[in-house]
Amino acid sequence: MSLFDSLATTRALTDVFSDRALLGRMVQFEVALARVQGRLGLIPASAAEAIAAAADPDALDAAAIAAASVGTATMAIPFVEALRRRVRDAQPAAADHVHWGATSQDVVDTAVVLCLTSARAVLEADHRRVATGLARLADEHGGTVMLARTLLQPAPPTTFGLKAAGWLDAESRSWRRLAQAFDASRVLQFGGGSGTLAALGAHGIAVSSALASELGLDDPGAPWHSHRDRFATLVAACGVYTGVLGKIARDVSLLMQEEVGEAAERGGGSSTLPHKRNPSSCAIVLAAALRVPGLVAAFLAALPQEHERGVGTWHAECATLRDAVQTTGAALAATATIVETLTVDGDRMRQNLAATGGAIFAERAMVLLVPKIGRDAAAAAVADAIRAARTEGRTFGDALAANPTAAAALRPEDFSTLATPEAYLGSAEAFRRRLLSRPD
Amino acid sequence: MSLFDSLATTRALTDVFSDRALLGRMVQFEVALARVQGRLGLIPASAAEAIAAAADPDALDAAAIAAASVGTATMAIPFVEALRRRVRDAQPAAADHVHWGATSQDVVDTAVVLCLTSARAVLEADHRRVATGLARLADEHGGTVMLARTLLQPAPPTTFGLKAAGWLDAESRSWRRLAQAFDASRVLQFGGGSGTLAALGAHGIAVSSALASELGLDDPGAPWHSHRDRFATLVAACGVYTGVLGKIARDVSLLMQEEVGEAAERGGGSSTLPHKRNPSSCAIVLAAALRVPGLVAAFLAALPQEHERGVGTWHAECATLRDAVQTTGAALAATATIVETLTVDGDRMRQNLAATGGAIFAERAMVLLVPKIGRDAAAAAVADAIRAARTEGRTFGDALAANPTAAAALRPEDFSTLATPEAYLGSAEAFRRRLLSRPD
Amino acid sequence: MSLFDSLATTRALTDVFSDRALLGRMVQFEVALARVQGRLGLIPASAAEAIAAAADPDALDAAAIAAASVGTATMAIPFVEALRRRVRDAQPAAADHVHWGATSQDVVDTAVVLCLTSARAVLEADHRRVATGLARLADEHGGTVMLARTLLQPAPPTTFGLKAAGWLDAESRSWRRLAQAFDASRVLQFGGGSGTLAALGAHGIAVSSALASELGLDDPGAPWHSHRDRFATLVAACGVYTGVLGKIARDVSLLMQEEVGEAAERGGGSSTLPHKRNPSSCAIVLAAALRVPGLVAAFLAALPQEHERGVGTWHAECATLRDAVQTTGAALAATATIVETLTVDGDRMRQNLAATGGAIFAERAMVLLVPKIGRDAAAAAVADAIRAARTEGRTFGDALAANPTAAAALRPEDFSTLATPEAYLGSAEAFRRRLLSRPD
Amino acid sequence: MSLFDSLATTRALTDVFSDRALLGRMVQFEVALARVQGRLGLIPASAAEAIAAAADPDALDAAAIAAASVGTATMAIPFVEALRRRVRDAQPAAADHVHWGATSQDVVDTAVVLCLTSARAVLEADHRRVATGLARLADEHGGTVMLARTLLQPAPPTTFGLKAAGWLDAESRSWRRLAQAFDASRVLQFGGGSGTLAALGAHGIAVSSALASELGLDDPGAPWHSHRDRFATLVAACGVYTGVLGKIARDVSLLMQEEVGEAAERGGGSSTLPHKRNPSSCAIVLAAALRVPGLVAAFLAALPQEHERGVGTWHAECATLRDAVQTTGAALAATATIVETLTVDGDRMRQNLAATGGAIFAERAMVLLVPKIGRDAAAAAVADAIRAARTEGRTFGDALAANPTAAAALRPEDFSTLATPEAYLGSAEAFRRRLLSRPD
Repeated sequence: MSLFDSLATTRALTDVFSDRALLGRMVQFEVALARVQGRLGLIPASAAEAIAAAADPDALDAAAIAAASVGTATMAIPFVEALRRRVRDAQPAAADHVHWGATSQDVVDTAVVLCLTSARAVLEADHRRVATGLARLADEHGGTVMLARTLLQPAPPTTFGLKAAGWLDAESRSWRRLAQAFDASRVLQFGGGSGTLAALGAHGIAVSSALASELGLDDPGAPWHSHRDRFATLVAACGVYTGVLGKIARDVSLLMQEEVGEAAERGGGSSTLPHKRNPSSCAIVLAAALRVPGLVAAFLAALPQEHERGVGTWHAECATLRDAVQTTGAALAATATIVETLTVDGDRMRQNLAATGGAIFAERAMVLLVPKIGRDAAAAAVADAIRAARTEGRTFGDALAANPTAAAALRPEDFSTLATPEAYLGSAEAFRRRLLSRPD
Repeated sequence: MSLFDSLATTRALTDVFSDRALLGRMVQFEVALARVQGRLGLIPASAAEAIAAAADPDALDAAAIAAASVGTATMAIPFVEALRRRVRDAQPAAADHVHWGATSQDVVDTAVVLCLTSARAVLEADHRRVATGLARLADEHGGTVMLARTLLQPAPPTTFGLKAAGWLDAESRSWRRLAQAFDASRVLQFGGGSGTLAALGAHGIAVSSALASELGLDDPGAPWHSHRDRFATLVAACGVYTGVLGKIARDVSLLMQEEVGEAAERGGGSSTLPHKRNPSSCAIVLAAALRVPGLVAAFLAALPQEHERGVGTWHAECATLRDAVQTTGAALAATATIVETLTVDGDRMRQNLAATGGAIFAERAMVLLVPKIGRDAAAAAVADAIRAARTEGRTFGDALAANPTAAAALRPEDFSTLATPEAYLGSAEAFRRRLLSRPD
Repeated sequence: MSLFDSLATTRALTDVFSDRALLGRMVQFEVALARVQGRLGLIPASAAEAIAAAADPDALDAAAIAAASVGTATMAIPFVEALRRRVRDAQPAAADHVHWGATSQDVVDTAVVLCLTSARAVLEADHRRVATGLARLADEHGGTVMLARTLLQPAPPTTFGLKAAGWLDAESRSWRRLAQAFDASRVLQFGGGSGTLAALGAHGIAVSSALASELGLDDPGAPWHSHRDRFATLVAACGVYTGVLGKIARDVSLLMQEEVGEAAERGGGSSTLPHKRNPSSCAIVLAAALRVPGLVAAFLAALPQEHERGVGTWHAECATLRDAVQTTGAALAATATIVETLTVDGDRMRQNLAATGGAIFAERAMVLLVPKIGRDAAAAAVADAIRAARTEGRTFGDALAANPTAAAALRPEDFSTLATPEAYLGSAEAFRRRLLSRPD
Repeated sequence: MSLFDSLATTRALTDVFSDRALLGRMVQFEVALARVQGRLGLIPASAAEAIAAAADPDALDAAAIAAASVGTATMAIPFVEALRRRVRDAQPAAADHVHWGATSQDVVDTAVVLCLTSARAVLEADHRRVATGLARLADEHGGTVMLARTLLQPAPPTTFGLKAAGWLDAESRSWRRLAQAFDASRVLQFGGGSGTLAALGAHGIAVSSALASELGLDDPGAPWHSHRDRFATLVAACGVYTGVLGKIARDVSLLMQEEVGEAAERGGGSSTLPHKRNPSSCAIVLAAALRVPGLVAAFLAALPQEHERGVGTWHAECATLRDAVQTTGAALAATATIVETLTVDGDRMRQNLAATGGAIFAERAMVLLVPKIGRDAAAAAVADAIRAARTEGRTFGDALAANPTAAAALRPEDFSTLATPEAYLGSAEAFRRRLLSRPD
């Protein structure tokens, strides 16, 4: 994990996409290919064994392979050469059968798919932490009344439980889409030079099918060398999911403002300001939500790949795909921290509600007044009361009670409900329960 | 359809998102709301009837509403005022009950959802044209041999049928995702000012459920005012789908080059060059594939919406969503034209294959030679033959036959297959059949 | 201005890019071309006159031209045909000389450039409003003390004057870049079918030079048909500028929160909540700042244009360029409204400062203590005082004075400055003056 | 250089942004700050010396700092702590004065600026290679006639020299913009916790000015902690510049197609296809041109930074800025390879011209015929000749000569020029010279 990337990935996802991991996945492909071909009699069984024995990813020089990649625009060529050299050193004849019938894209794409299976597991663990934490918050705070806020202005009350249930619902739905996109991408790429497996003669389908099985991947029916919609859908699902996490972080960062003070993540300190508790995890999530959309755009722009292998289009994918998954993972881990450490201040929520002086119940007053006196008269009375409340430092309810029109139209108890948030929650609780009862 | 947008939308999709259509959808929402509330006794039945009677979208001044939107950052406020004025003119008392319990976002979001149902139907019709046309091409051209091309360089042969089947497979899979995203977005938005339907007291759920039913939409269980992942997934699916169409257009535009000449869309003329037949439809599709990724990024960036209604985040969506769907539709209509008018020149495909002088069969030579003489000797013989073929103007097969090492290792008939594309197609036909046999 | 675009453009910029305006610019090109060619004797002077006389943009059917554009992927072809028909009706022989030696891209690109000159003027007027308003705010509020906020948490004080001066500085610098990009784009495109002006024989340079002069444009030295970096730089400058405006809007929307209440734009009302004053103009600006980055990405992605005219790359530009400029203009007009209507509540700023109980001066305490007692002892004393202040409801200054270590190290007057914002403003005033003294 | 990044950066730019380099730049900031403060008497001179002596970046544990960054959302805090520990070990009292008056963002932003100065030098060296190579190509090939191609279809001829001059012109202009953006970003960031340098009392300006000087940076007049337009302009200029390089690579990759064969970069081999010479460097450039636009969008989206330090907005920049510069550098190095190894096949260019059978001169025929017989008769004759040429296998010139109308209107020598590209180059040479004579 480099310094420049320290907020844009996690240690676990750094490992998943490390040189060591990628070389391991490439070796896994070549060994599986040799084994399958050995079993089918396409290459000598002894060659398959020799390839498997010599194929130690840690013995390969990743830096040299990376440097040599520039010359051919693919890491596969120096990789295969290096692997072949190792096999040759152990059993010269076997070296001829390394990478038999495969092309660069087969080994790279399939290795990336295998890396993604590891990444999915890492993400899923953090998703479970987030979903569990949000369900707990939604469960505990059904009765925690707070201001709703629209366009960052106070609106009639809601509950923190409903807010958390909304976060949970969007998170769960978006995770399901992301998980499906991972699963749909879990397919072997194997097409040979032109996508016809011509070098394998009549054995292409048999090798392909057995190779998928050997690697624990699905057989996509045909190579997908220049059809990249599965990866694109995965990257796009990262974009949606990270955005959904960003909504949680944005809300928390706003609630955590000193002037609001309704909820707070554990947070981090400052280098200069000893009093501070910063929304550090929110910052990481929001940063990710800003970065991933551009990565999605970059991936989508590369979809129109030329003929049987693109020139530049294929080559643009690798780093972008890795960055999208890692940044999503960084956001997810930070969201888990937010959710698990979140403290909720129900008293402050009530204070902030009260501090509006009841103006947020103006809509409720309209609901009560309009059927009695019509919209125009109701609006006039309410506007008058809002003005009076502001200038005279009274609550909106008191000011409205002092308005003759309103006083004539409403019962005394109506005015008292204008200071009772619980009396104006509508379907908040019903919505919360509906959201919580959804299957994940 | 304005001039600036003429390549970025279609007439049908211009209508779907026109002022007239949108006002119609907004009116549809308000009328359905009034009817439901009338039935449930929340407003007078006569008011509901009066609202329905007065609610003529064509009587509303769209330009005035658009101009007034700037002041409140939503078109809903001037729209509701205009509608209320019309109702008042017809039946003053009924005007009080217009938009009862709803908020701006309810009517705008739901109207947009209703526009999307129309858009889906337009797109689906063109998708069927494309899928039908591609299936026909894939079906007819299983035996049409052509060069594969990787990084725009000749590779061993494939068939045009397999190429078309690959297009079809990606198009169908991506359409299914897009169609699912449309269907998942087909949900009512109805939450009132704070997303609690507080103004409806205990009747929120009942009104919400009946309203969804009245409008033919799904009930999402709870309002989704600041959870926009469904729309984001739809926009992202537009991005993937348009990219997949872009791949078809890119291939066709390359095949249509005069120097290649293997396939051509009907095309369009030039203002100055009377001889030209331009890939006009390809240009429209490729333009769309360049534009949509940025629209996806813009939509995703707006996901972290503040609290119960975002400030700017919600407001960024409308134009972007419309643009993404329209541009996708422009690409789709142009792809339909490409596919339906595509002419395929099998003779030219064979000529281009032959013009490589057999160098594309060097891989095949390796496949034959390696098991006999080992990779190093095989590579030397092949390299020698490629060199000889180039300098001496012979075919690769002849040049290889003249190489003593190769001549000793192979049978005479082996060399002749080096000029026979059909002998080196591997699993092309099997892959084509697999792709064609998929359920759509 | 359509409803879907109502927050994404302005009336003035709708006009600048309207069909009528664009056709007017295209006609302007053709008339200027004919006049220049008439003067140089390349076409009959009478033909030039006839073309000028017949060239009434309002007589052209924009909708028909837009519809016909799809067939040839350019509006220029149906436009030129329509213009030629009009000229023919007036003077048949003259019709032959319409669009002489020019190509589709020449008339479209140059017309777009001419539209951009109008757009620049519209934007500049609003820029001046913004710059004037910000300068006034920065000038008036040098002594208006307020909390700085980092990561949305309170930090030691700053002044509103410095904040406004920072806005002004970034806005002015970014406007200069945008204005330069407009000016650099103010170049004629004129290259004929292949970019060689071959149809004009030896007269290409002379016609080109005179045409630029006739249209009030710069002569770029050579056609730039597939070199689009000037437009790309303009779109990118829109992206930076809109982002800078977005920073102003974000700050104002945060200051306008009820719980903060330090500044407010005029704002707009709500459809349901009669008490509300929404940051409507902020919403428009922030929406633009979310949308334009994706438009920039779309434009940049189209830069690698094929050979002498791209297939799709050129065709992707038009709508994106228009959208970028219009959205920037919408943000700018809304920013002008924010700045011109901004009310600043200096009392509330002081209250919010005071409400921190002095914790924001912990850094100041460290500055005083470290030289006396070392960092470790200072940090311990400050941490103790922050804790004590929180639990005991005292100010940080009082709590620190009660700490024996601190009390021994500092003078009594030191503690009093811990509640005096003016005593801890550092270079705020110097920075404000420096920023205000910059030449625009 | 990791495998996933191997095509997205260069070795030199990997070093520029390495942990080691970044820590070195951060240390450079802290040492310069201490020295300046020592000179001004704000901290003991001995402390400054001790800090400078202890500040060895190689002694810091980059991995530990990166891991600790997540807790506070900034690498600066663990960095400063680590540096302070080292100083303390050497001279305890001096440790108190490390990072005196500065904030996290000061050291990170300024270190990034210093990294960018190194990056600029790396890029400039490759820019010079590209500009020199393009100037040579443009200089040598003024007489190398070739097909122009619009929408990938043949158009009247141009010269390869003009094409290369166009590349050069766009590259040079875009480099100047990028270089200016680098230079404008070369500014110190120094504001302390709130951007007021409050901890330095009255000495803020003096320290700031001396610190800029010590580091060889410009003094921006005031801190720019939440005004990021300079960086944004730099990233955007990377986007334009990479797109311009992408245009060169796209053209070369198209010219290098076997069926076109007019020019070729050195290229790289294939893992399976021994005959192939792939446009490897073009692939790297085009991949970069696909990726950078999304990075630009991500950077621009982060511009609206909250108050005096953003929450997530600032944190999104670091990795994106690094990626944009590195990817631009990868494109530039690959472009240098393309340009320096480009072989141009003038004979093939003539053959491809001839292979059109003269149809590309149809425009020329119109230019000759219209003044004689009017546009309608001319168009009919030309269309007839194009048809005849295609069906009868004749050249367009011969077919036109056989058309009675044309034969009557034109002189015999006119027809012969219809097969002479040199006779229809218009201002190609004049444009080439104009482009080459521009000052760089």
